Amino acid sequence: MNTFIEPERSQWESLVSRPTLDNLSLVDKVSAVLKAVKSEGDEAILRYTQEFDQVSLSEFSVSAEELEKAATLISTDLKNAIQIAASNIEAFHAKQSQDIPAMETQPGVSCWRKSVGIEKVGLYIPGGSAPLFSTILMLGIPAKLAGCKEVILCSPPDKEGNLHPAILFAARLVGITQVFKIGGVQAIGAMAFGTASVPKVYKIFGPGNQYVTCAKELIQRTGTAIDMPAGPSEVLVLADETANPVFVAADLLSQAEHGPDSQALLITTSKDLAISVEKEVQVQLDQLPRKDIAAKALQHSKLIVVKSMKEAIDLSNQYASEHLIISTNNPEEVASQIVNAGSIFLGNYSPESVGDYASGTNHTLPTNGYATAYSGVSLDSFVRKITFQKLTKEGLEGIAQTVVTMAEAEGLRAHAAAVTRRLKG
Amino acid sequence: MNTFIEPERSQWESLVSRPTLDNLSLVDKVSAVLKAVKSEGDEAILRYTQEFDQVSLSEFSVSAEELEKAATLISTDLKNAIQIAASNIEAFHAKQSQDIPAMETQPGVSCWRKSVGIEKVGLYIPGGSAPLFSTILMLGIPAKLAGCKEVILCSPPDKEGNLHPAILFAARLVGITQVFKIGGVQAIGAMAFGTASVPKVYKIFGPGNQYVTCAKELIQRTGTAIDMPAGPSEVLVLADETANPVFVAADLLSQAEHGPDSQALLITTSKDLAISVEKEVQVQLDQLPRKDIAAKALQHSKLIVVKSMKEAIDLSNQYASEHLIISTNNPEEVASQIVNAGSIFLGNYSPESVGDYASGTNHTLPTNGYATAYSGVSLDSFVRKITFQKLTKEGLEGIAQTVVTMAEAEGLRAHAAAVTRRLKG
Repeated sequence: MNTFIEPERSQWESLVSRPTLDNLSLVDKVSAVLKAVKSEGDEAILRYTQEFDQVSLSEFSVSAEELEKAATLISTDLKNAIQIAASNIEAFHAKQSQDIPAMETQPGVSCWRKSVGIEKVGLYIPGGSAPLFSTILMLGIPAKLAGCKEVILCSPPDKEGNLHPAILFAARLVGITQVFKIGGVQAIGAMAFGTASVPKVYKIFGPGNQYVTCAKELIQRTGTAIDMPAGPSEVLVLADETANPVFVAADLLSQAEHGPDSQALLITTSKDLAISVEKEVQVQLDQLPRKDIAAKALQHSKLIVVKSMKEAIDLSNQYASEHLIISTNNPEEVASQIVNAGSIFLGNYSPESVGDYASGTNHTLPTNGYATAYSGVSLDSFVRKITFQKLTKEGLEGIAQTVVTMAEAEGLRAHAAAVTRRLKG
Repeated sequence: MNTFIEPERSQWESLVSRPTLDNLSLVDKVSAVLKAVKSEGDEAILRYTQEFDQVSLSEFSVSAEELEKAATLISTDLKNAIQIAASNIEAFHAKQSQDIPAMETQPGVSCWRKSVGIEKVGLYIPGGSAPLFSTILMLGIPAKLAGCKEVILCSPPDKEGNLHPAILFAARLVGITQVFKIGGVQAIGAMAFGTASVPKVYKIFGPGNQYVTCAKELIQRTGTAIDMPAGPSEVLVLADETANPVFVAADLLSQAEHGPDSQALLITTSKDLAISVEKEVQVQLDQLPRKDIAAKALQHSKLIVVKSMKEAIDLSNQYASEHLIISTNNPEEVASQIVNAGSIFLGNYSPESVGDYASGTNHTLPTNGYATAYSGVSLDSFVRKITFQKLTKEGLEGIAQTVVTMAEAEGLRAHAAAVTRRLKG
């Protein structure tokens, strides 16, 4: 790991910068796939599934039997774990609904707000080495709580044409309406445009590789909403001399094992801690099955020693980490000064992995500094908050002069007339 | 206006389609301006202000004196109107804050959520024939309530190098931190990239012409968030035979006067109403100062007669209007079946113009069918909702098996180790 001892503030901008991803070269490839899916529909999906997933499918949709059978194919331990996690996630997300009952802003002028689930949403779950069923909980549970009517899921099939049973078990548990064996750009295109098999949705959620991310950006410009812009996952540990180097090293490695482009940072006021963490990272790294991936991520990860907790907090706010672990003797006080972060983990017994799976918070969070402007996924992401107003005749009389004066000052006479004609009547 | 009597459902898709805006030809022009602003900063802004706004400015920033003096340059009536509107908007938006106090999702596992204002936001207020000070209230008030620290505003100067005093009055009233005389694409570029004069912001809000809209789309891809994708304004009036044709015509015209690309629709169960409304629109149109603009908008506006209220509601949901006025004898019952709309106006005394200015709801709303997936601007738009979790040692012991089982099933051993190493310690 790269170590920086008391860097000057003038260096901070380069310290917090993420590796730039040049995705211009992707755009042409991704556009071509999207275009084919838009014009050819299922035919194109069939072709790309054969090309990219190396399997020939006659039917993309997962059958009710396959879904049911999945529960028999995974261990009881895993089923229990998924159910406990789902229950925690549901409990926390259920608190997020926020209708505003009718209030009079002035006499006879009532305003209120109602959250209505987005009717059709699509979830994308990547394939690869591991079945990311936890993301199904994180997206499917708020979708259900929000009242989304159609919640479809796409995930790439393996070479036998199957999805992992844990994916199917989680999908069924959270009430996904339809599951499709489609991956990559063709899945994003199918959900954005609709095909004979796959219904068109209004918003697409979920992680993916750089092709999927590029496809989400492109379809966003054609009118389908997406959860948020995505980059590689990252963790920042903010620690003082009271932190335990074994725990800190484990947290950094749990981020590093995600992928070679993951970023793990330690910002600390203790040089001794930084030295111990660096040693401990080496020790623990050797014990990991994914040590090659983690080692690559560690090459662009950083240990930064700063002069004071004030500096540590400022630098942390400038980095705006997706995950922020605060391992100090007063984590709440430090947390109260954090303005930019996705999700925050306080104290010695709150590793990021509890939030990744089961504490109840959402693990779909803003990366790449986007925490300066974006929130993580929440119930909000699955609803529209529709506002309402109803005026009595007296209410309209009371607000008439305000509206007419402003409308005329903006040069919008018909806006004024919509008020005055009602009061003449 | 174009009239459709009981169209078949197969025609609905074309009925709800908006005029397609081809903005591909814009991208090159807009990109060139953004690129110049990014590399040359203030110099480029000076040049484009001269070219597009035809005024040479030595200083873009509005002085404290100019802001103070503005209050003496507008009428007391207008000041009062702006203040009343601001008070209603503040009252409704103040209800939108939504922290979640700490809750135990399981014993010893506490989760909570805090809304933190986006530190730096930029508002864009277009120039043109009328000073859109109402939009300053709609964006500046929630920004202040959210606790945004830096709220800057850009608006194009007139040929004397001034901004309208109503713009400055509203800006000062809502506590904008700095006002700049910069318009168009160069304003969006300045706020996205920062220049010597203009601070870089994290999120940009506000309406604009097609160049500004294109610029917002482009800078979104380089990491600055935007409020939402924008299209021309639109209203849908959903009416039965009890509606008053004079009021309905006034509402359609208040939308039509916005611009030649605005859309005004009537969906009604009453053919008689449609006939009366069409006549009344002609009568009222002749009395409007902006009748040329409104007449152009009416050319692509529609009167649609349907067989039943059920069909009217279905078609309205398919259109997903920015503004929806429900003029029926049971507006609440109809409203309860609406799933796609930006803001809804109920009954005979709730014209859209009260929401545009002063009822308290926000007037920055999703157009172009985006109400299927997007909400209007609200306090949410100006905050990040940061989640927190803190576990006790016992809490971590209680959740350990769940996390470890799931992490191992996803092949992420370091995630499991971040839990188990803490419990060995």
